[in-house]
Amino acid sequence: MSGPNKEHIIKSYDEELARLTGEIVRMGELAVGQLEAAIDVVERRDERAAQRVVANDEVIDQLEQEISHDVVRLLALRAPMAGDLRNVFAALRIAADIERIGDYAANVAKRSIPLSMVAPIAAASGLTYLAELAATEVRDVLAAYRDRDAERAHEVWQNDAELDEAYTGYFRQLLTYMMEDPRNITPCTHLLFMAKNIERIGDHATNIAESVWFQVYGEPLNAQRSKRDFTSSPELPHLGNKN
Amino acid sequence: MSGPNKEHIIKSYDEELARLTGEIVRMGELAVGQLEAAIDVVERRDERAAQRVVANDEVIDQLEQEISHDVVRLLALRAPMAGDLRNVFAALRIAADIERIGDYAANVAKRSIPLSMVAPIAAASGLTYLAELAATEVRDVLAAYRDRDAERAHEVWQNDAELDEAYTGYFRQLLTYMMEDPRNITPCTHLLFMAKNIERIGDHATNIAESVWFQVYGEPLNAQRSKRDFTSSPELPHLGNKN
Repeated sequence: MSGPNKEHIIKSYDEELARLTGEIVRMGELAVGQLEAAIDVVERRDERAAQRVVANDEVIDQLEQEISHDVVRLLALRAPMAGDLRNVFAALRIAADIERIGDYAANVAKRSIPLSMVAPIAAASGLTYLAELAATEVRDVLAAYRDRDAERAHEVWQNDAELDEAYTGYFRQLLTYMMEDPRNITPCTHLLFMAKNIERIGDHATNIAESVWFQVYGEPLNAQRSKRDFTSSPELPHLGNKN
Repeated sequence: MSGPNKEHIIKSYDEELARLTGEIVRMGELAVGQLEAAIDVVERRDERAAQRVVANDEVIDQLEQEISHDVVRLLALRAPMAGDLRNVFAALRIAADIERIGDYAANVAKRSIPLSMVAPIAAASGLTYLAELAATEVRDVLAAYRDRDAERAHEVWQNDAELDEAYTGYFRQLLTYMMEDPRNITPCTHLLFMAKNIERIGDHATNIAESVWFQVYGEPLNAQRSKRDFTSSPELPHLGNKN
Protein backbone atom coordinates (compact mmCIF):
# COMPACT_ATOMS: atom_id res chain seq x y z
CA MET A 1 0.00 0.00 0.00
CA SER A 2 2.95 2.37 0.44
CA GLY A 3 5.50 3.48 -2.15
CA PRO A 4 6.21 6.82 -3.76
CA ASN A 5 3.19 6.73 -6.05
CA LYS A 6 0.61 6.18 -3.33
CA GLU A 7 2.29 8.77 -1.15
CA HIS A 8 2.17 11.26 -3.95
CA ILE A 9 -1.59 10.76 -4.34
CA ILE A 10 -2.19 11.07 -0.62
CA LYS A 11 -0.11 14.20 -0.32
CA SER A 12 -1.85 15.75 -3.28
CA TYR A 13 -5.28 14.99 -1.83
CA ASP A 14 -4.26 16.53 1.49
CA GLU A 15 -2.94 19.50 -0.37
CA GLU A 16 -6.21 19.94 -2.19
CA LEU A 17 -8.12 19.69 1.05
CA ALA A 18 -5.81 22.22 2.70
CA ARG A 19 -6.31 24.54 -0.25
CA LEU A 20 -10.09 24.14 0.08
CA THR A 21 -9.92 24.96 3.79
CA GLY A 22 -7.78 28.00 3.02
CA GLU A 23 -10.22 29.22 0.38
CA ILE A 24 -13.13 28.88 2.78
CA VAL A 25 -11.36 30.73 5.58
CA ARG A 26 -10.49 33.50 3.14
CA MET A 27 -14.10 33.67 1.98
CA GLY A 28 -15.20 33.84 5.62
CA GLU A 29 -12.80 36.69 6.34
CA LEU A 30 -14.23 38.60 3.39
CA ALA A 31 -17.73 38.10 4.79
CA VAL A 32 -16.72 39.40 8.24
CA GLY A 33 -15.03 42.33 6.54
CA GLN A 34 -18.29 43.04 4.72
CA LEU A 35 -20.21 43.01 7.99
CA GLU A 36 -17.75 45.45 9.55
CA ALA A 37 -17.85 47.67 6.48
CA ALA A 38 -21.65 47.61 6.56
CA ILE A 39 -21.73 48.80 10.15
CA ASP A 40 -19.17 51.47 9.43
CA VAL A 41 -21.40 52.64 6.59
CA VAL A 42 -24.44 52.75 8.88
CA GLU A 43 -22.54 54.87 11.39
CA ARG A 44 -21.17 57.27 8.80
CA ARG A 45 -24.29 57.25 6.58
CA ASP A 46 -22.13 57.00 3.49
CA GLU A 47 -24.22 56.02 0.48
CA ARG A 48 -21.29 55.43 -1.89
CA ALA A 49 -19.51 53.21 0.60
CA ALA A 50 -22.80 51.34 1.09
CA GLN A 51 -23.04 50.68 -2.63
CA ARG A 52 -19.48 49.40 -2.60
CA VAL A 53 -20.35 46.89 0.11
CA VAL A 54 -23.38 45.74 -1.90
CA ALA A 55 -21.24 45.35 -5.04
CA ASN A 56 -18.50 43.43 -3.18
CA ASP A 57 -20.97 40.72 -2.25
CA GLU A 58 -20.53 39.48 -5.82
CA VAL A 59 -16.94 38.48 -4.95
CA ILE A 60 -18.14 36.24 -2.12
CA ASP A 61 -20.82 34.69 -4.33
CA GLN A 62 -18.19 33.90 -6.96
CA LEU A 63 -15.89 32.37 -4.36
CA GLU A 64 -18.73 30.08 -3.29
CA GLN A 65 -19.23 29.03 -6.91
CA GLU A 66 -15.52 28.30 -7.24
CA ILE A 67 -15.48 26.30 -4.03
CA SER A 68 -18.47 24.27 -5.24
CA HIS A 69 -16.61 23.54 -8.44
CA ASP A 70 -13.51 22.49 -6.51
CA VAL A 71 -15.63 20.18 -4.39
CA VAL A 72 -17.21 18.59 -7.45
CA ARG A 73 -13.78 18.09 -8.98
CA LEU A 74 -12.43 16.61 -5.76
CA LEU A 75 -15.38 14.22 -5.54
CA ALA A 76 -15.11 13.20 -9.17
CA LEU A 77 -11.34 12.70 -9.20
CA ARG A 78 -10.80 11.24 -5.75
CA ALA A 79 -14.12 9.69 -4.72
CA PRO A 80 -13.16 10.29 -1.08
CA MET A 81 -14.60 8.03 1.63
CA ALA A 82 -15.65 8.35 5.27
CA GLY A 83 -13.66 11.06 7.05
CA ASP A 84 -12.46 12.65 3.83
CA LEU A 85 -16.00 12.74 2.52
CA ARG A 86 -17.08 14.43 5.75
CA ASN A 87 -14.41 17.09 5.23
CA VAL A 88 -15.60 17.77 1.72
CA PHE A 89 -19.22 17.97 2.81
CA ALA A 90 -18.37 20.28 5.68
CA ALA A 91 -16.58 22.53 3.20
CA LEU A 92 -19.66 22.66 1.00
CA ARG A 93 -22.01 23.48 3.85
CA ILE A 94 -19.70 26.03 5.44
CA ALA A 95 -19.23 27.81 2.11
CA ALA A 96 -23.03 28.04 1.78
CA ASP A 97 -23.31 29.50 5.29
CA ILE A 98 -20.61 32.06 4.58
CA GLU A 99 -22.34 33.03 1.37
CA ARG A 100 -25.49 33.74 3.39
CA ILE A 101 -23.49 35.76 5.93
CA GLY A 102 -22.21 37.86 3.03
CA ASP A 103 -25.77 38.36 1.77
CA TYR A 104 -26.95 39.54 5.17
CA ALA A 105 -24.02 41.93 5.52
CA ALA A 106 -24.75 43.39 2.07
CA ASN A 107 -28.40 43.77 2.99
CA VAL A 108 -27.43 45.71 6.13
CA ALA A 109 -25.39 48.06 3.95
CA LYS A 110 -28.22 48.38 1.42
CA ARG A 111 -30.73 49.32 4.09
CA SER A 112 -28.40 52.00 5.40
CA ILE A 113 -29.10 54.01 2.23
CA PRO A 114 -32.75 54.85 2.95
CA LEU A 115 -31.72 55.25 6.59
CA SER A 116 -29.23 57.95 5.69
CA MET A 117 -31.98 60.17 4.34
CA VAL A 118 -33.85 60.46 7.60
CA ALA A 119 -32.82 62.27 10.76
CA PRO A 120 -30.20 60.23 12.62
CA ILE A 121 -31.73 58.52 15.61
CA ALA A 122 -29.98 57.26 18.70
CA ALA A 123 -31.45 53.80 18.00
CA ALA A 124 -28.97 53.09 15.22
CA SER A 125 -26.07 52.84 17.66
CA GLY A 126 -27.57 49.68 19.21
CA LEU A 127 -26.91 47.95 15.92
CA THR A 128 -23.15 48.32 16.30
CA TYR A 129 -23.11 46.23 19.45
CA LEU A 130 -25.08 43.43 17.75
CA ALA A 131 -22.72 43.52 14.78
CA GLU A 132 -19.65 43.30 17.00
CA LEU A 133 -21.03 40.20 18.72
CA ALA A 134 -21.82 38.64 15.35
CA ALA A 135 -18.41 39.47 13.86
CA THR A 136 -16.67 37.90 16.87
CA GLU A 137 -18.75 34.75 16.47
CA VAL A 138 -17.87 34.43 12.80
CA ARG A 139 -14.16 35.06 13.37
CA ASP A 140 -14.06 32.51 16.20
CA VAL A 141 -15.88 29.84 14.25
CA LEU A 142 -13.60 30.35 11.24
CA ALA A 143 -10.59 29.82 13.52
CA ALA A 144 -12.28 26.70 14.90
CA TYR A 145 -12.79 25.45 11.35
CA ARG A 146 -9.22 26.23 10.31
CA ASP A 147 -7.82 24.39 13.37
CA ARG A 148 -10.47 21.62 13.36
CA ASP A 149 -11.12 22.68 16.95
CA ALA A 150 -14.51 21.22 17.93
CA GLU A 151 -14.43 22.63 21.45
CA ARG A 152 -13.93 26.15 20.23
CA ALA A 153 -16.77 25.62 17.74
CA HIS A 154 -18.97 24.48 20.60
CA GLU A 155 -18.14 27.67 22.52
CA VAL A 156 -19.26 29.81 19.59
CA TRP A 157 -22.43 27.75 19.38
CA GLN A 158 -23.15 28.53 23.03
CA ASN A 159 -22.17 32.19 22.82
CA ASP A 160 -24.81 32.83 20.20
CA ALA A 161 -27.30 33.04 23.09
CA GLU A 162 -25.76 36.39 23.96
CA LEU A 163 -26.43 37.76 20.48
CA ASP A 164 -29.99 36.44 20.57
CA GLU A 165 -30.64 38.19 23.86
CA ALA A 166 -29.09 41.44 22.67
CA TYR A 167 -31.26 41.24 19.55
CA THR A 168 -34.41 40.75 21.60
CA GLY A 169 -33.57 43.75 23.79
CA TYR A 170 -32.84 45.91 20.78
CA PHE A 171 -36.09 44.86 19.11
CA ARG A 172 -38.06 46.02 22.16
CA GLN A 173 -36.15 49.28 22.20
CA LEU A 174 -37.00 49.94 18.55
CA LEU A 175 -40.69 49.33 19.21
CA THR A 176 -40.68 52.02 21.87
CA TYR A 177 -39.01 54.50 19.49
CA MET A 178 -41.69 53.77 16.93
CA MET A 179 -44.48 54.33 19.41
CA GLU A 180 -43.02 57.60 20.65
CA ASP A 181 -43.04 59.25 17.25
CA PRO A 182 -44.55 58.06 13.95
CA ARG A 183 -41.64 59.67 12.10
CA ASN A 184 -39.44 56.97 13.60
CA ILE A 185 -41.50 54.15 12.07
CA THR A 186 -39.91 53.96 8.63
CA PRO A 187 -36.27 54.19 9.79
CA CYS A 188 -36.98 51.81 12.66
CA THR A 189 -38.48 49.14 10.38
CA HIS A 190 -35.21 49.27 8.43
CA LEU A 191 -33.28 48.94 11.68
CA LEU A 192 -35.52 45.98 12.66
CA PHE A 193 -34.60 44.15 9.46
CA MET A 194 -30.94 45.10 9.80
CA ALA A 195 -30.90 43.74 13.35
CA LYS A 196 -32.67 40.57 12.20
CA ASN A 197 -30.04 40.14 9.49
CA ILE A 198 -27.30 40.35 12.10
CA GLU A 199 -29.09 37.88 14.35
CA ARG A 200 -29.29 35.52 11.35
CA ILE A 201 -25.53 35.90 10.82
CA GLY A 202 -25.15 34.49 14.32
CA ASP A 203 -27.37 31.54 13.36
CA HIS A 204 -25.13 30.81 10.39
CA ALA A 205 -22.09 30.97 12.68
CA THR A 206 -23.74 28.27 14.82
CA ASN A 207 -24.44 26.24 11.66
CA ILE A 208 -20.74 26.41 10.87
CA ALA A 209 -19.96 25.37 14.45
CA GLU A 210 -22.21 22.33 13.93
CA SER A 211 -20.41 21.48 10.69
CA VAL A 212 -17.02 21.69 12.43
CA TRP A 213 -18.25 19.47 15.26
CA PHE A 214 -19.61 16.90 12.80
CA GLN A 215 -16.41 17.01 10.80
CA VAL A 216 -14.30 16.28 13.89
CA TYR A 217 -16.51 13.75 15.67
CA GLY A 218 -18.66 12.31 12.87
CA GLU A 219 -21.81 12.88 14.86
CA PRO A 220 -24.14 15.86 15.20
CA LEU A 221 -23.76 18.49 17.89
CA ASN A 222 -26.91 16.99 19.27
CA ALA A 223 -28.14 18.93 22.29
CA GLN A 224 -31.29 20.63 21.05
CA ARG A 225 -30.44 24.26 20.61
CA SER A 226 -33.33 26.29 21.94
CA LYS A 227 -34.50 29.04 19.65
CA ARG A 228 -33.87 32.27 21.43
CA ASP A 229 -35.40 34.83 19.13
CA PHE A 230 -38.06 35.78 21.64
CA THR A 231 -39.43 38.47 19.36
CA SER A 232 -41.44 35.86 17.47
CA SER A 233 -42.80 34.15 20.58
CA PRO A 234 -45.68 35.07 22.89
CA GLU A 235 -43.35 36.32 25.65
CA LEU A 236 -42.90 39.63 23.85
CA PRO A 237 -44.91 42.33 25.62
CA HIS A 238 -47.64 43.77 23.45
CA LEU A 239 -46.59 47.32 23.91
CA GLY A 240 -48.96 48.35 21.18
CA ASN A 241 -51.94 47.61 23.37
CA LYS A 242 -50.77 49.66 26.25
CA ASN A 243 -51.02 53.03 24.58
CA MET B 1 -19.09 -2.71 -21.19
CA SER B 2 -22.56 -4.28 -21.43
CA GLY B 3 -23.81 -7.55 -19.92
CA PRO B 4 -26.27 -8.27 -17.14
CA ASN B 5 -23.97 -7.18 -14.33
CA LYS B 6 -23.32 -3.70 -15.71
CA GLU B 7 -26.99 -3.28 -16.52
CA HIS B 8 -27.92 -4.23 -13.02
CA ILE B 9 -25.64 -1.59 -11.60
CA ILE B 10 -26.96 1.08 -13.94
CA LYS B 11 -30.58 0.23 -13.21
CA SER B 12 -29.92 0.28 -9.51
CA TYR B 13 -28.23 3.67 -9.73
CA ASP B 14 -31.16 5.05 -11.69
CA GLU B 15 -33.49 3.61 -9.12
CA GLU B 16 -31.59 5.27 -6.33
CA LEU B 17 -31.66 8.58 -8.15
CA ALA B 18 -35.39 8.23 -8.81
CA ARG B 19 -35.92 7.47 -5.13
CA LEU B 20 -33.91 10.57 -4.20
CA THR B 21 -36.00 12.74 -6.53
CA GLY B 22 -39.16 11.25 -5.02
CA GLU B 23 -37.97 11.97 -1.48
CA ILE B 24 -37.18 15.57 -2.37
CA VAL B 25 -40.54 16.16 -4.06
CA ARG B 26 -42.27 14.69 -1.00
CA MET B 27 -40.22 16.93 1.27
CA GLY B 28 -41.18 19.92 -0.89
CA GLU B 29 -44.87 19.05 -0.69
CA LEU B 30 -44.59 18.91 3.08
CA ALA B 31 -43.03 22.38 3.07
CA VAL B 32 -45.83 23.82 0.88
CA GLY B 33 -48.34 22.14 3.18
CA GLN B 34 -46.65 23.86 6.12
CA LEU B 35 -46.92 27.24 4.41
CA GLU B 36 -50.62 26.71 3.73
CA ALA B 37 -51.20 25.52 7.29
CA ALA B 38 -49.35 28.57 8.60
CA ILE B 39 -51.59 30.94 6.67
CA ASP B 40 -54.69 29.06 7.76
CA VAL B 41 -53.49 29.49 11.33
CA VAL B 42 -52.96 33.23 10.84
CA GLU B 43 -56.48 33.59 9.48
CA ARG B 44 -58.10 31.57 12.25
CA ARG B 45 -55.75 32.79 15.02
CA ASP B 46 -55.45 29.26 16.35
CA GLU B 47 -52.56 29.00 18.79
CA ARG B 48 -52.61 25.19 19.11
CA ALA B 49 -52.61 24.71 15.37
CA ALA B 50 -49.73 27.19 15.17
CA GLN B 51 -47.72 25.13 17.62
CA ARG B 52 -48.45 22.03 15.54
CA VAL B 53 -47.02 23.72 12.45
CA VAL B 54 -43.91 24.74 14.40
CA ALA B 55 -43.47 21.17 15.70
CA ASN B 56 -43.96 19.64 12.23
CA ASP B 57 -40.95 21.53 10.93
CA GLU B 58 -38.85 18.89 12.69
CA VAL B 59 -40.11 16.31 10.15
CA ILE B 60 -38.80 18.38 7.25
CA ASP B 61 -35.47 18.91 9.00
CA GLN B 62 -35.13 15.16 9.50
CA LEU B 63 -35.98 14.49 5.87
CA GLU B 64 -33.17 16.82 4.84
CA GLN B 65 -30.77 14.93 7.11
CA GLU B 66 -31.87 11.63 5.55
CA ILE B 67 -31.48 12.99 2.05
CA SER B 68 -27.98 14.25 2.91
CA HIS B 69 -27.12 10.78 4.16
CA ASP B 70 -28.51 9.18 1.01
CA VAL B 71 -26.42 11.55 -1.07
CA VAL B 72 -23.26 10.75 0.87
CA ARG B 73 -23.96 7.04 0.44
CA LEU B 74 -24.60 7.46 -3.26
CA LEU B 75 -21.38 9.42 -3.70
CA ALA B 76 -19.34 6.93 -1.69
CA LEU B 77 -20.75 3.80 -3.35
CA ARG B 78 -21.14 5.00 -6.92
CA ALA B 79 -18.69 7.88 -7.35
CA PRO B 80 -20.96 9.33 -10.06
CA MET B 81 -19.49 11.49 -12.79
CA ALA B 82 -20.57 14.47 -14.91
CA GLY B 83 -24.35 14.50 -15.41
CA ASP B 84 -24.99 12.08 -12.59
CA LEU B 85 -22.89 14.15 -10.26
CA ARG B 86 -24.89 17.21 -11.27
CA ASN B 87 -28.10 15.39 -10.37
CA VAL B 88 -26.77 14.49 -6.98
CA PHE B 89 -25.58 18.02 -6.31
CA ALA B 90 -28.88 19.49 -7.44
CA ALA B 91 -30.62 17.14 -5.01
CA LEU B 92 -28.45 18.37 -2.17
CA ARG B 93 -28.99 22.04 -2.94
CA ILE B 94 -32.72 21.67 -3.52
CA ALA B 95 -33.14 19.79 -0.24
CA ALA B 96 -31.37 22.66 1.55
CA ASP B 97 -33.68 25.21 -0.11
CA ILE B 98 -36.76 23.22 0.87
CA GLU B 99 -35.51 22.98 4.43
CA ARG B 100 -35.29 26.78 4.50
CA ILE B 101 -38.80 27.09 3.04
CA GLY B 102 -40.02 24.89 5.88
CA ASP B 103 -38.23 27.10 8.41
CA TYR B 104 -39.84 30.23 7.02
CA ALA B 105 -43.30 28.63 7.03
CA ALA B 106 -42.84 27.56 10.66
CA ASN B 107 -41.73 31.07 11.55
CA VAL B 108 -44.88 32.51 9.97
CA ALA B 109 -46.95 30.15 12.15
CA LYS B 110 -44.89 31.03 15.24
CA ARG B 111 -45.42 34.75 14.75
CA SER B 112 -49.17 34.24 14.43
CA ILE B 113 -49.25 33.43 18.17
CA PRO B 114 -48.42 36.92 19.46
CA LEU B 115 -50.58 38.25 16.64
CA SER B 116 -53.62 36.33 17.92
CA MET B 117 -53.53 38.25 21.19
CA VAL B 118 -54.04 41.63 19.63
CA ALA B 119 -57.14 43.02 17.95
CA PRO B 120 -57.48 41.57 14.44
CA ILE B 121 -56.48 44.08 11.84
CA ALA B 122 -57.47 44.16 8.21
CA ALA B 123 -53.78 44.19 7.30
CA ALA B 124 -53.38 40.48 8.03
CA SER B 125 -55.46 39.51 5.01
CA GLY B 126 -52.82 40.89 2.64
CA LEU B 127 -50.53 38.14 3.84
CA THR B 128 -52.78 35.44 2.37
CA TYR B 129 -52.29 36.72 -1.14
CA LEU B 130 -48.50 36.72 -0.75
CA ALA B 131 -48.61 33.19 0.63
CA GLU B 132 -50.73 31.97 -2.28
CA LEU B 133 -48.25 33.37 -4.79
CA ALA B 134 -45.37 31.74 -2.90
CA ALA B 135 -47.13 28.36 -2.59
CA THR B 136 -47.83 28.35 -6.33
CA GLU B 137 -44.18 29.09 -7.06
CA VAL B 138 -42.99 26.25 -4.86
CA ARG B 139 -45.49 23.74 -6.30
CA ASP B 140 -44.55 24.72 -9.86
CA VAL B 141 -40.83 24.48 -9.26
CA LEU B 142 -41.23 21.07 -7.60
CA ALA B 143 -43.10 19.87 -10.68
CA ALA B 144 -40.33 21.30 -12.85
CA TYR B 145 -37.77 19.42 -10.76
CA ARG B 146 -39.74 16.16 -10.88
CA ASP B 147 -40.08 16.38 -14.69
CA ARG B 148 -36.59 17.88 -15.26
CA ASP B 149 -38.45 20.67 -17.07
CA ALA B 150 -36.01 23.59 -17.36
CA GLU B 151 -38.47 25.84 -19.20
CA ARG B 152 -41.07 25.52 -16.47
CA ALA B 153 -38.35 26.23 -13.91
CA HIS B 154 -37.43 29.36 -15.84
CA GLU B 155 -41.08 30.49 -15.75
CA VAL B 156 -41.16 30.18 -11.97
CA TRP B 157 -37.92 32.13 -11.80
CA GLN B 158 -39.54 34.93 -13.78
CA ASN B 159 -42.85 34.83 -11.92
CA ASP B 160 -41.10 35.58 -8.66
CA ALA B 161 -41.14 39.25 -9.73
CA GLU B 162 -44.88 39.26 -9.05
CA LEU B 163 -44.36 38.10 -5.48
CA ASP B 164 -41.61 40.69 -4.97
CA GLU B 165 -43.92 43.46 -6.15
CA ALA B 166 -46.80 42.26 -4.00
CA TYR B 167 -44.43 42.17 -1.03
CA THR B 168 -43.29 45.74 -1.65
CA GLY B 169 -46.90 46.96 -1.87
CA TYR B 170 -47.86 45.14 1.30
CA PHE B 171 -44.84 46.56 3.12
CA ARG B 172 -45.94 50.12 2.28
CA GLN B 173 -49.47 49.33 3.38
CA LEU B 174 -48.24 48.08 6.76
CA LEU B 175 -46.22 51.26 7.29
CA THR B 176 -49.37 53.35 6.85
CA TYR B 177 -51.25 51.19 9.39
CA MET B 178 -48.43 51.71 11.86
CA MET B 179 -48.47 55.46 11.38
CA GLU B 180 -52.23 55.71 11.77
CA ASP B 181 -52.27 54.16 15.23
CA PRO B 182 -49.37 53.24 17.52
CA ARG B 183 -51.35 50.23 18.74
CA ASN B 184 -50.81 48.74 15.29
CA ILE B 185 -47.03 48.91 15.59
CA THR B 186 -46.36 45.65 17.42
CA PRO B 187 -48.73 43.46 15.35
CA CYS B 188 -47.54 45.13 12.15
CA THR B 189 -43.87 44.44 12.89
CA HIS B 190 -44.82 40.77 13.18
CA LEU B 191 -46.68 41.01 9.88
CA LEU B 192 -43.63 42.70 8.31
CA PHE B 193 -41.43 39.77 9.30
CA MET B 194 -44.07 37.25 8.22
CA ALA B 195 -44.32 38.93 4.82
CA LYS B 196 -40.52 38.98 4.54
CA ASN B 197 -40.44 35.25 5.31
CA ILE B 198 -42.89 34.61 2.49
CA GLU B 199 -40.90 36.78 0.11
CA ARG B 200 -37.82 34.72 1.06
CA ILE B 201 -39.73 31.52 0.27
CA GLY B 202 -40.10 32.89 -3.26
CA ASP B 203 -36.32 33.47 -3.38
CA HIS B 204 -35.72 29.84 -2.45
CA ALA B 205 -38.17 28.76 -5.17
CA THR B 206 -36.02 30.70 -7.66
CA ASN B 207 -32.89 29.03 -6.23
CA ILE B 208 -34.52 25.67 -6.92
CA ALA B 209 -35.40 26.85 -10.43
CA GLU B 210 -31.71 27.68 -10.95
CA SER B 211 -30.69 24.23 -9.72
CA VAL B 212 -33.14 22.57 -12.12
CA TRP B 213 -31.81 24.66 -14.99
CA PHE B 214 -28.21 23.78 -14.14
CA GLN B 215 -29.11 20.12 -13.80
CA VAL B 216 -30.70 20.05 -17.26
CA TYR B 217 -28.27 22.25 -19.19
CA GLY B 218 -25.06 22.04 -17.14
CA GLU B 219 -24.73 25.81 -17.12
CA PRO B 220 -26.09 28.52 -14.83
CA LEU B 221 -29.36 30.33 -15.47
CA ASN B 222 -27.18 33.27 -16.18
CA ALA B 223 -29.23 36.39 -16.81
CA GLN B 224 -28.61 38.54 -13.77
CA ARG B 225 -31.75 38.41 -11.71
CA SER B 226 -32.43 41.89 -10.44
CA LYS B 227 -33.23 42.13 -6.77
CA ARG B 228 -36.75 43.38 -6.50
CA ASP B 229 -37.20 43.84 -2.78
CA PHE B 230 -37.62 47.59 -3.11
CA THR B 231 -38.26 47.95 0.61
CA SER B 232 -34.52 47.91 1.24
CA SER B 233 -33.66 50.39 -1.49
CA PRO B 234 -33.86 54.17 -1.62
CA GLU B 235 -36.99 54.17 -3.79
CA LEU B 236 -39.17 53.53 -0.75
CA PRO B 237 -40.98 56.73 0.20
CA HIS B 238 -40.03 58.01 3.62
CA LEU B 239 -43.51 58.18 4.93
CA GLY B 240 -42.14 58.76 8.40
CA ASN B 241 -40.98 62.22 7.41
CA LYS B 242 -44.29 63.35 6.06
CA ASN B 243 -46.21 63.32 9.32
